[in-house]
Amino acid sequence: MSHSTSSHSATHPATHPTTTRRNLLRSTVATAALAATTTAATEARATTPTPPTPPTGKGPRIGILLYDGYSLLDPTGPAEILSRLPDATVTMIAERRGAVRTDTGDVAVVAERSIAEVDRLDVLLVPGAGNRGTVGAMTNEALLSWIREMHRHTRWTTSVCTGSLVLAAAGLLDGREATTYWASAEYLTSTFDVTYLPERYVRSGKIVTAAGVSAGIDMALYLASLIAGDDTAKAIQLAVEYDPRPPFDAGDATKADAQLKERALQLLADSQV
Amino acid sequence: MSHSTSSHSATHPATHPTTTRRNLLRSTVATAALAATTTAATEARATTPTPPTPPTGKGPRIGILLYDGYSLLDPTGPAEILSRLPDATVTMIAERRGAVRTDTGDVAVVAERSIAEVDRLDVLLVPGAGNRGTVGAMTNEALLSWIREMHRHTRWTTSVCTGSLVLAAAGLLDGREATTYWASAEYLTSTFDVTYLPERYVRSGKIVTAAGVSAGIDMALYLASLIAGDDTAKAIQLAVEYDPRPPFDAGDATKADAQLKERALQLLADSQV
Repeated sequence: MSHSTSSHSATHPATHPTTTRRNLLRSTVATAALAATTTAATEARATTPTPPTPPTGKGPRIGILLYDGYSLLDPTGPAEILSRLPDATVTMIAERRGAVRTDTGDVAVVAERSIAEVDRLDVLLVPGAGNRGTVGAMTNEALLSWIREMHRHTRWTTSVCTGSLVLAAAGLLDGREATTYWASAEYLTSTFDVTYLPERYVRSGKIVTAAGVSAGIDMALYLASLIAGDDTAKAIQLAVEYDPRPPFDAGDATKADAQLKERALQLLADSQV
Repeated sequence: MSHSTSSHSATHPATHPTTTRRNLLRSTVATAALAATTTAATEARATTPTPPTPPTGKGPRIGILLYDGYSLLDPTGPAEILSRLPDATVTMIAERRGAVRTDTGDVAVVAERSIAEVDRLDVLLVPGAGNRGTVGAMTNEALLSWIREMHRHTRWTTSVCTGSLVLAAAGLLDGREATTYWASAEYLTSTFDVTYLPERYVRSGKIVTAAGVSAGIDMALYLASLIAGDDTAKAIQLAVEYDPRPPFDAGDATKADAQLKERALQLLADSQV
């Protein structure tokens, strides 16, 4: 191994404690704020594990519904964006508290609250899932009824990917325009009274649906602009350095050939439990 | 409320069980595969919670290191992409097993394995964090020493955002080109023997570093192409419908003015615990 501990000790921060006290982000404002919160957080952690932040009532209460078999990026992309809204609280919610596994079975995000514990949200986001997870949510009357109840008071009711099928199953998309995962568009329009638009995100009244998986990030920036204005949304985009430059241009289903589509769906099917 | 339960019962899938048995994705191949796995998964869940998938040894073993205060999208964006590689296993790893909280304190992802339980990986990914989390990881000798040990045998050692500072603190970036979060570039180059490149991702030997947060998705597609070829990477890009169209063009720090940068860092600081 070429990198022994001694060979890089000259630049190793552990041997230069003063270096690590410098702020890693160049911003005097951020430095002051971070220094203050670092101390507080360290003290809190010394006594007890950090509890979930309770809703403060100051900023938007954003709730993301997890259910067995969701796709990991569907809730986490928007959560990253929306958590940067001033005074926002992002809460992962599921039928029951605890770890909820993704479609691959490998990864789990913790639901901090059960649906029974959440009666009001400013923003509801329903992620998508593989076939099993989507059907599971679409036929789970407890979830559907909670979604309908939340929707009565939300400022924005939103979905990512096949999450729009779940909103449709809850009856929220009747007569509306919406988008969904490219491979689910035919199912959406043939099953529900919905007009599919092949856009990254579609707003219909206070409902905003996003296309597949990664489209949730674009939608979340749009939501951020609706909630806090364009300047804040742009600052969040810079905060997460979202200047996308994928190495390929293969993400648009309307430009993909049948072979690529089949390969994409096969990879999804093979990776899911 | 305009959408009562009765008003949409005609299109409600719960009242049409045959509808929900149809496949939601239009693919005969996927249908067959999904139908088979749905049955198996349902049977497994009836008896016991789904355990983490053990490494099969067939595909790449991808390990993502979680530590207190990481930024949510840093590990989850790449995990979404890399989990679609044929026979891949994605394992969230931390100093100890269990829930690991993000920089906002609101969200936690479960670490399925402790570092003591993982002695070989094909791909190691180190996410970034806010100031507190990054300094915490950079000064945690147990993590650094595990990273160095993993790196001896990895096929690819990778980072997202300030994760490159952690790799640098472990001594892995000495004399190399790398990228990092835009606001940490100055710190990276002034503290370590590293040449910063303002790219979405930078490869140096078997080390690949990504720029801030969302850049991990671009890097993961690049990694997918290195591991399984361009056709598979393109199929994964379509599988997650990654055809990015953010509502604004504000994610490139080289084009941002001082005010936007300050606002971005302030939002980050305010959202972090």
